[in-house]
Amino acid sequence: MPLEFRKQVRSKTFTGPTAGFCGEYAQANLAILPAEFADQFLRFCVRNQRACPLLAVGEPGQWNLPALGRELDIRTDAPGYNVYRHGELCEQPGDLLEIWRDDLVVFAIGCSFSFEQMLAQDHIPLRHVDEGVNVPMYRTAIDNHPAGPFGGKLVVSMRPMSGAQAVRAVQVTSRFPAVHGAPIHIGSPAALGIRDLARPDYGDPVSMHEHEVPVFWACGVTPQSALESARLPFAIAHRPGHMLITDIPNASLAVL
Amino acid sequence: MPLEFRKQVRSKTFTGPTAGFCGEYAQANLAILPAEFADQFLRFCVRNQRACPLLAVGEPGQWNLPALGRELDIRTDAPGYNVYRHGELCEQPGDLLEIWRDDLVVFAIGCSFSFEQMLAQDHIPLRHVDEGVNVPMYRTAIDNHPAGPFGGKLVVSMRPMSGAQAVRAVQVTSRFPAVHGAPIHIGSPAALGIRDLARPDYGDPVSMHEHEVPVFWACGVTPQSALESARLPFAIAHRPGHMLITDIPNASLAVL
Repeated sequence: MPLEFRKQVRSKTFTGPTAGFCGEYAQANLAILPAEFADQFLRFCVRNQRACPLLAVGEPGQWNLPALGRELDIRTDAPGYNVYRHGELCEQPGDLLEIWRDDLVVFAIGCSFSFEQMLAQDHIPLRHVDEGVNVPMYRTAIDNHPAGPFGGKLVVSMRPMSGAQAVRAVQVTSRFPAVHGAPIHIGSPAALGIRDLARPDYGDPVSMHEHEVPVFWACGVTPQSALESARLPFAIAHRPGHMLITDIPNASLAVL
Repeated sequence: MPLEFRKQVRSKTFTGPTAGFCGEYAQANLAILPAEFADQFLRFCVRNQRACPLLAVGEPGQWNLPALGRELDIRTDAPGYNVYRHGELCEQPGDLLEIWRDDLVVFAIGCSFSFEQMLAQDHIPLRHVDEGVNVPMYRTAIDNHPAGPFGGKLVVSMRPMSGAQAVRAVQVTSRFPAVHGAPIHIGSPAALGIRDLARPDYGDPVSMHEHEVPVFWACGVTPQSALESARLPFAIAHRPGHMLITDIPNASLAVL
């Protein structure tokens, strides 16, 4: 259960990637930044909802977000963090207890693990899971809608599947706008400005089978990339793949 | 309005294809066959619902189907009919008044015109409409689920669009299972056994633009094709494109 899992993380018993753990509960991407930039980042998220669906936003200094889970502590409950200073990755601490500040605002952003659980329940195979690698992700040529210092390009994840599975995947994921929702594109990678599916910008390549189409979803790496390129004096994100596990059942995120 | 339109058809004032007329109302494919085959054909429709979604089924001899419309007469209200004897197209009468029989059972099957209206309202362009031709249709390698003498291959219609439009088209048409519903396939024509998109088996070819994907829907020509190949001693269909316009608002067919 999520609370027990978070306690293991908090005690440093668990320090790894969270894929496959507490599969029925939503995992969250984290963006944590000083209050002076929070309003602009909030506008960025709202303007780019497909990539940055907000599960919760905290008040300055607030590290317990009850909307996300019981007895939750943002400073300790993700298995790893990336700390950026002026856009550079400087530290990867196991917790934020020493560097926490009273002006930090937490943004919790929905994660594709949630809709992947729904796809798997529907017997739609996930190639990257079958091949034991990270999902391939690509920086597209599509500009995000900017807000303040936040901008950059839309990052997408890609899952290959049959044409009939692509139809079903649209139906399944459309029900979950809080975790990226429907795909943004099916078919031609070039239409998104992606040159070579075999060379993802993040994650790992996966094999494409005959007659399959690539299906692209807006990806939670988008806000992380926007955060880095904004080169704020100070900002924190979760360590990629090391997500915050919430008490929110994925099923409860369905809008229909 | 549908009733006024049907009166023009009945008086032979209107004898053409019905595409674009009474656009807010469902148009129906017709299959009319002797009662001795009706149960088997009904099973065929139920087993192949994507291609043969039933709007209404009559009793033997019944030519007024109130479920389809007010003061409706199946014998006169389609602008043209195909009459088959032993699988051969023998006549194309303007009405059925002289050949109507008391053992004939009417099947009214949903038509893609309905979901095309919904796609157009959503600003998803329809290439065959823009190019002023019939939608391209293809006999696939996919066997229908047989029932009695009815079998054959699934026929699909194809509409090319961008990858983002394909996603939206799945969302829009999924709401309308009574008029073929969601696409059955997106992408590779070869996956369906279609060799050349430029050579449809029915209708006309349309141009494909760069970065577009072909999106395939189960098609109402499937039951017509099954009817022909069953080689019944006697059967009637509407003349292709010359549909029965019903009083059923397309919007009322949305399941969500």
